[in-house]
Amino acid sequence: MTRALEEVLRDAIRTIPDYPKPGVLFRDITTLLGNAQAFRRAMDELVAPYADSHIDKIAGIEARGFILGGAMAHQLYAGFVPIRKKGKLPHETVRVAYSLEYGLDEMEMHVDAVSPGEKVILVDDLIATGGTAEAACRLLKQLGADIVAACFVIDLPDLGGRAKLEAMGIDVRTLIAFEGE
Amino acid sequence: MTRALEEVLRDAIRTIPDYPKPGVLFRDITTLLGNAQAFRRAMDELVAPYADSHIDKIAGIEARGFILGGAMAHQLYAGFVPIRKKGKLPHETVRVAYSLEYGLDEMEMHVDAVSPGEKVILVDDLIATGGTAEAACRLLKQLGADIVAACFVIDLPDLGGRAKLEAMGIDVRTLIAFEGE
Repeated sequence: MTRALEEVLRDAIRTIPDYPKPGVLFRDITTLLGNAQAFRRAMDELVAPYADSHIDKIAGIEARGFILGGAMAHQLYAGFVPIRKKGKLPHETVRVAYSLEYGLDEMEMHVDAVSPGEKVILVDDLIATGGTAEAACRLLKQLGADIVAACFVIDLPDLGGRAKLEAMGIDVRTLIAFEGE
Repeated sequence: MTRALEEVLRDAIRTIPDYPKPGVLFRDITTLLGNAQAFRRAMDELVAPYADSHIDKIAGIEARGFILGGAMAHQLYAGFVPIRKKGKLPHETVRVAYSLEYGLDEMEMHVDAVSPGEKVILVDDLIATGGTAEAACRLLKQLGADIVAACFVIDLPDLGGRAKLEAMGIDVRTLIAFEGE
């Protein structure tokens, strides 16, 4: 990615101090999504390495991953499959537990969302500790997916999520890193 | 839309009986989204009338409207703005109450999501009674949006949502109707 594009994208992200709690700098991607040029260029850049990879499905993590995933599926002529919080999907599901700051939660996919061997890209807006993304990868592997990459617009590398996924053998692609958080 | 395309899309939707409660036929769009060809053709068809309309923003209703809206924004070179359940957006919001089957809920948009006069298309996967979509239109109007259309893949016309939006002066576009529900 060019330095110019990185600056366009970085400038399009709004930083909200002390949200959702004191001391946290929240990186708000809605301003980037709402900026037609920034959204377009971010999506073009994110999927560029996979244009000839014959991706079958984009798996988006609820809820912001749905927005990015819809655009990526459209750009790559792929299907889209949702990874949802428990109890939201109407058909038979597979389910995995993951840790939140306080306690556990669960996420689900439809059992027939991905067929064994299908080439899948996972997407969410941001990777921090990687707990959600790691659980999503476990779900995808349970369904037999070939996880080509996990893509995020924003990386908070100090929180270790990228390293966690790479330790699972997942290729991670991100566009902008905010360090020292 | 050709009859052949309508059949492709109709066949791609899964019907789940007695979900979420006895007597209801749930129209599950995830099978359409996961089918690359059906998803692509549905999105192409949905936005076709607006290709030259210089749409500024696609406003998607959480959560399935995010998937469709991401794809539509990509296709129309527009920005995407989320309409979320209350408490999910980090910046200052405008809020509107709407009726659910039992009681009230609220949805929100960022106050700066849309500028006065911007051309906006609202999107969700399905319109039934139209309570959510009508509230979303009120929010968009509060921000001064020029609502060019409200788009849905599935219409349940017997539940009156389409008529409700049209009575507000909103142009409604849908792809597939399931009648007698």
